[in-house]
Amino acid sequence: MPRTASDHAATLVAGLREGNRRALARVLTEVENGSPAGREALRQLFSATGRAHTIGITGAPGSGKSTVTNMLAKAYRAQDKTVAIVAVDPSSPFTQGAILGDRVRMQDLSGDPGVFIRSLASRGALGGLSHATLDVVAVLDASGRDVILIETVGAGQDEVEIAGAAQTTVLINTPGAGDDIQAMKAGIMEIADVLCVNKADHPGVDALVGQLRALLSLGGERDWQPPIVRTIATQDDGAGELVDAIAAHHDHLAGSGALAARERDRLRRQVVALARAQLMAGLLRDEGAESRLPQLLDEVAARRLDPHSAAAAWIAPRRPA
Amino acid sequence: MPRTASDHAATLVAGLREGNRRALARVLTEVENGSPAGREALRQLFSATGRAHTIGITGAPGSGKSTVTNMLAKAYRAQDKTVAIVAVDPSSPFTQGAILGDRVRMQDLSGDPGVFIRSLASRGALGGLSHATLDVVAVLDASGRDVILIETVGAGQDEVEIAGAAQTTVLINTPGAGDDIQAMKAGIMEIADVLCVNKADHPGVDALVGQLRALLSLGGERDWQPPIVRTIATQDDGAGELVDAIAAHHDHLAGSGALAARERDRLRRQVVALARAQLMAGLLRDEGAESRLPQLLDEVAARRLDPHSAAAAWIAPRRPA
Repeated sequence: MPRTASDHAATLVAGLREGNRRALARVLTEVENGSPAGREALRQLFSATGRAHTIGITGAPGSGKSTVTNMLAKAYRAQDKTVAIVAVDPSSPFTQGAILGDRVRMQDLSGDPGVFIRSLASRGALGGLSHATLDVVAVLDASGRDVILIETVGAGQDEVEIAGAAQTTVLINTPGAGDDIQAMKAGIMEIADVLCVNKADHPGVDALVGQLRALLSLGGERDWQPPIVRTIATQDDGAGELVDAIAAHHDHLAGSGALAARERDRLRRQVVALARAQLMAGLLRDEGAESRLPQLLDEVAARRLDPHSAAAAWIAPRRPA
Repeated sequence: MPRTASDHAATLVAGLREGNRRALARVLTEVENGSPAGREALRQLFSATGRAHTIGITGAPGSGKSTVTNMLAKAYRAQDKTVAIVAVDPSSPFTQGAILGDRVRMQDLSGDPGVFIRSLASRGALGGLSHATLDVVAVLDASGRDVILIETVGAGQDEVEIAGAAQTTVLINTPGAGDDIQAMKAGIMEIADVLCVNKADHPGVDALVGQLRALLSLGGERDWQPPIVRTIATQDDGAGELVDAIAAHHDHLAGSGALAARERDRLRRQVVALARAQLMAGLLRDEGAESRLPQLLDEVAARRLDPHSAAAAWIAPRRPA
């Protein structure tokens, strides 16, 4: 890290700590790009993290995640808390989605300096989407935001990991969704701390609540029984109850010591995944690693070598003798 | 690899090559578990792969993926082709979903030895869900199946990668889905070779086809213009048209040389991802790597060290001086 780049990061970090939105946006861009300045900024600001309440909001496409997220943002603003929204877009490896999402939100929350919105359209340089998200959350945390809302589609391992990385995870369900969604629920229910039944004015809401209760009862005894909160987010209906349920979960975690245990578990997964990515980056930096690949791929394409053996042969020079 | 384990794998591979379903199921279990016997079986059977037509089937929850997959399976069986179905379940890191899905299918396709169904509920030992899937597809390919249908939810990077790993990717859309699904479409459209508009008897189908045409036109000139096929999969309506569209795409790929190029690209991604996983596995096998982690995590939890720096410190002994 040249002295000037380190100074540059220090200036940006000082700016974001003072509440400068431009500095915050710049740091986020550097961090998302995985640039040396971004890495250095993360290093410098990390000591200021760990203060925000992080809330994951997940659910199937069409369940109204963005509307619920916006409803929560407004509710926390009414409590005079500063809010950041991180929207992890399912179409992120590609393009359009993220920008579209931002535009829709702008209509509702724009002009309020107490709300900062960031959509993640890139996977970041190291460690994939979930790690770009964790880095972005760390930056927002250090910037002094009280509440960070992390919105993801609840399908796909990356998204489940992202939602699970929050202190409190809200799973949104809606009446009248298909069987597939029911099946997804069976899995993702495991990470839900609060169940939000949105579109509670639609037919079938009582049946859905009954199903959710039944699914919860399958889980057996737990320290925390996820409450079921009905909302009509388009009308801000149920906002108070949802905020209360989230607060109750946070109090439960803090009181039981689970907050620190969860945090450590998350950090462990993050460090291990970053190590994996750094090992790979190290291999690619090595003289020869990139150039040795085509020949191995020729062997694989000709079916003379299987992919696992090719991978082993490729990394062999890095393995201890 | 002890001699006996290698022999054991050879016996299983010989069995699956002869069409023994039990041997096939055993190899798949070993491969999914990432066992030494599974690795050895993959090594031995890989030369027999590359013959099946692999078809990815993806779409949002509720779009009718399983029904379309079953419709296609029946259509290929009517052509006297043998079929394998690999269902990659969104709830796979957890439990229930996969078993549920199998049970539903059994009613329709059970009793036909020409159809082999496997749900993936585990992420595999190395490389995650997408690599467990690729290994499973390789085994089914070597077992002589003519067509392999790979069904995944089209949200999440893993699932997009899995769908994109097939020779032909079918994206299912349905009329009346929410805005979120529209946004997802914008991204996942990029990997679609054939667009299936399912539930074509529902209101809004013409509007949806119009939107899909508009989205396709945004993509500009391409070698292959994805056709739009309407189906009512619950009634096997449109099966012939969908099979024809998939065949036309396969012919296009084979004729243009793109089949081999795609295959090589897929193998490259697979080998690189496996190398990443093997590097990590090597680190964990090392004396001390596991035991050095808790102390680093203490530093991170105390905010004295950021996660990126902790990862770098953890892997440092493996990096060349």
